[in-house]
Amino acid sequence: MASIDLNCDMGESYGAYRFGRDEELLESISSANIACGFHAGDPGVMRRTVALCLEKGVAVGAHPGLPDLAGFGRREMAVGAEEVYELTLYQLGALQAFVQAEGGTLRHVKPHGALYHMASARGDLADAVARAALRVSGGALVLLGPPGSELLRAGKAHGLRVAAEAFADRTYRPDGTLTPRTEPGALLSDPAQAAAQVLRLVREGAVTSARGETVPLTAETVCVHGDGPHAASIARSVRAALDEAGIAVCPPHGA
Amino acid sequence: MASIDLNCDMGESYGAYRFGRDEELLESISSANIACGFHAGDPGVMRRTVALCLEKGVAVGAHPGLPDLAGFGRREMAVGAEEVYELTLYQLGALQAFVQAEGGTLRHVKPHGALYHMASARGDLADAVARAALRVSGGALVLLGPPGSELLRAGKAHGLRVAAEAFADRTYRPDGTLTPRTEPGALLSDPAQAAAQVLRLVREGAVTSARGETVPLTAETVCVHGDGPHAASIARSVRAALDEAGIAVCPPHGA
Amino acid sequence: MASIDLNCDMGESYGAYRFGRDEELLESISSANIACGFHAGDPGVMRRTVALCLEKGVAVGAHPGLPDLAGFGRREMAVGAEEVYELTLYQLGALQAFVQAEGGTLRHVKPHGALYHMASARGDLADAVARAALRVSGGALVLLGPPGSELLRAGKAHGLRVAAEAFADRTYRPDGTLTPRTEPGALLSDPAQAAAQVLRLVREGAVTSARGETVPLTAETVCVHGDGPHAASIARSVRAALDEAGIAVCPPHGA
Amino acid sequence: MASIDLNCDMGESYGAYRFGRDEELLESISSANIACGFHAGDPGVMRRTVALCLEKGVAVGAHPGLPDLAGFGRREMAVGAEEVYELTLYQLGALQAFVQAEGGTLRHVKPHGALYHMASARGDLADAVARAALRVSGGALVLLGPPGSELLRAGKAHGLRVAAEAFADRTYRPDGTLTPRTEPGALLSDPAQAAAQVLRLVREGAVTSARGETVPLTAETVCVHGDGPHAASIARSVRAALDEAGIAVCPPHGA
Repeated sequence: MASIDLNCDMGESYGAYRFGRDEELLESISSANIACGFHAGDPGVMRRTVALCLEKGVAVGAHPGLPDLAGFGRREMAVGAEEVYELTLYQLGALQAFVQAEGGTLRHVKPHGALYHMASARGDLADAVARAALRVSGGALVLLGPPGSELLRAGKAHGLRVAAEAFADRTYRPDGTLTPRTEPGALLSDPAQAAAQVLRLVREGAVTSARGETVPLTAETVCVHGDGPHAASIARSVRAALDEAGIAVCPPHGA
Repeated sequence: MASIDLNCDMGESYGAYRFGRDEELLESISSANIACGFHAGDPGVMRRTVALCLEKGVAVGAHPGLPDLAGFGRREMAVGAEEVYELTLYQLGALQAFVQAEGGTLRHVKPHGALYHMASARGDLADAVARAALRVSGGALVLLGPPGSELLRAGKAHGLRVAAEAFADRTYRPDGTLTPRTEPGALLSDPAQAAAQVLRLVREGAVTSARGETVPLTAETVCVHGDGPHAASIARSVRAALDEAGIAVCPPHGA
Repeated sequence: MASIDLNCDMGESYGAYRFGRDEELLESISSANIACGFHAGDPGVMRRTVALCLEKGVAVGAHPGLPDLAGFGRREMAVGAEEVYELTLYQLGALQAFVQAEGGTLRHVKPHGALYHMASARGDLADAVARAALRVSGGALVLLGPPGSELLRAGKAHGLRVAAEAFADRTYRPDGTLTPRTEPGALLSDPAQAAAQVLRLVREGAVTSARGETVPLTAETVCVHGDGPHAASIARSVRAALDEAGIAVCPPHGA
Repeated sequence: MASIDLNCDMGESYGAYRFGRDEELLESISSANIACGFHAGDPGVMRRTVALCLEKGVAVGAHPGLPDLAGFGRREMAVGAEEVYELTLYQLGALQAFVQAEGGTLRHVKPHGALYHMASARGDLADAVARAALRVSGGALVLLGPPGSELLRAGKAHGLRVAAEAFADRTYRPDGTLTPRTEPGALLSDPAQAAAQVLRLVREGAVTSARGETVPLTAETVCVHGDGPHAASIARSVRAALDEAGIAVCPPHGA
């Protein structure tokens, strides 16, 4: 039976600030990437989000980010490999304490925002993330990253399982990379289109580019967004299409 | 053979800011309370401090504080028990990740500054700290607090071992509480006097008040300060006096 | 012609986090209290909020808070008078730069959350706020505070104009203080009731307590809230009632 | 009579953390660049540093930095021109409030660390800094930057006076740029050498490269560092050499 993981960023509220529709999204997904207090999230949000995920049977993962609450972790910063190792390990440890306190198990790691992009492209930063994930889990975590990225290479090199990630609502270029947001057709805002993209990805190992070309793409997990006007309806649409097609939605085993 | 623990706050540097004479102090003490990033410390400082303690054979403990870097965790804040539980668990988890990554074991917890004072006096906050310590360690941690405090009561009530703490360089009032810093004679700045106070504490279970009265005091751990002009010489003097007296300096077993 | 000021907290978004319905509320109010980056707000939010207020003809005031973004400035902290002076002056200066850059004038100051409560009750903190307001404006600012508070006393003592503030959606006790939120009937969630309270306040110098008693209350400004499910409808209802009654809604002159 | 400005970064302490030897350095310099709370400094430190500078007759300038206390503002961040304008204006306004409250006048602006480097190289960021400086002062501020930098170009373009800055303890390459710190001979740690470099700069409009070449260099202000083992002795040595040579040490007029 075919299967796919649906992951979503969660727990990105902070203090009095609400962010994302976590409770609504949890009905559609199989894996939650929980913010760890650096780019978003705080100890109370982390505890409640972990508890909610465990209650709903959604796999709990860590979503460490750069120390930049003001920029929501989206601004690249000149951090070196040692700093990335240290700030990732710090955040993984903090989240793991909540997961263990609530009786769960930390399942995966997906860096956030600028850290995701930087560690996807730079081998030294990817190694730093993988080393931190290894140290905190003894190799039990699955590391998420873009297909062909340094993140996945580093994860494998350090003995972690890895899962290649695609996006439900982003289009791809013929070379398998994302269409930049600045270009037309970068985003799929129609829930039906997003669902069709995920179905084709699972069934054919391919997606359709913004210009209609067939783009080979292999992914074990698909990211749906948790904020934005279309987030909840895209997630529901993707999940419904997968359910209807008899495709299991479950956390990634990793490769 | 008589024994006592000497503990000191460590890892309170932050980014470009240096604080305390950690390397110097490590020669004298048996337990280090390592800041966890809220009132002081950062991921890099935590990693290096943990590694240094393990290298020197000094027991590693957590020193969680209020989220107030600007006030160094010394300003009381109106936080409730749930917040204290959450922020303590977060910090313990973060530090534990570094300890495990470096191949060590987290041994004890001592709240910092205003959190120490608040949790010593208020039962609900003490219970919150104890619950977090229990959750992160399954009961393996020793909780430090003032003799007779809510912290020690809560630690025992939650099945943790506890260690009553005295101060090497502070004088006591006849009722066993510290002489407030605003009163004359509150501080012992003479290393010889501090050493004499610790020796009497270990041998007789008593200290001498600022007015010369004998004050019964039982403690399993003694705090020496890591900053200030007299810190290093007081720590050296206390340690030398204990060594000379044949009193073992070792981490607390807890009661 | 009778008149009253309607004020509302504004610019409390932060980075990627949205807070309050500023644009909607601006249609109803005459004075905006703009967050200054400590409890909420950031430089970009401040610039845009100031520009929006000036465009809408709403008087711009400063809304300084405690340095506690995680707690949204609602948690009391043990800060002394010097710290309150310094953190207030810092925030007033930062906001004033944006106001001047956009071609406007800073009109008033209203401390936020815990700082408002602390400075209302403690004379030394009230004096600190008033001193900062005086220094940044040379006496041109109006200081807002509860009727009979230390804030108003301190403002007058330092030569500032002051404006007593009432709340549209809170009930009062017979002694003129707010019904604590923990008691039944503390909040008016019905826009019509809030409007009626403001009308009676302006016309009769009195409000009706939760138990139906007449409570004498004099205020030159009325706070409407900018967040919460009823915020926008309460503000609209109050404004419509005042307009219909021929009561001018305008910034406070201060006394 | 020949003259030169000696500037130094000041007020970079934070809360319990001490940084730099401000009081000692103030005896040697004519201009202080005061941190504004983003990369370093806090409201209390700002107030005390401003007061100290005014007491000593040292010109007060602003030293705005990136919002990165953990990195001391030394890590480049992906901020756009609008963000740089906003965070610079915020910091200038905050500092100006303290300067005015203490009866002084803000004289100059020198961005800190990564912001200095980014705004020296990128025209849009330099324009953002210059616009903020213009808005807060109406054109009265002198903008400091490297010779030939975008910062100086932008300052002039916006009608500010500008002052080219050289470093007392850094060597230069034949093209007039600084020898990178990673190369041998980048730093002058000998106070006599630093003093000789400043003297040659003032007298001949040139310095000597690490390899002994003559490098033409024109600067109206020279930066001496406030931290590091040699800071105070270098500053004293430079100042003494200038005094002995009859060269006036005074704030820059700007060009």
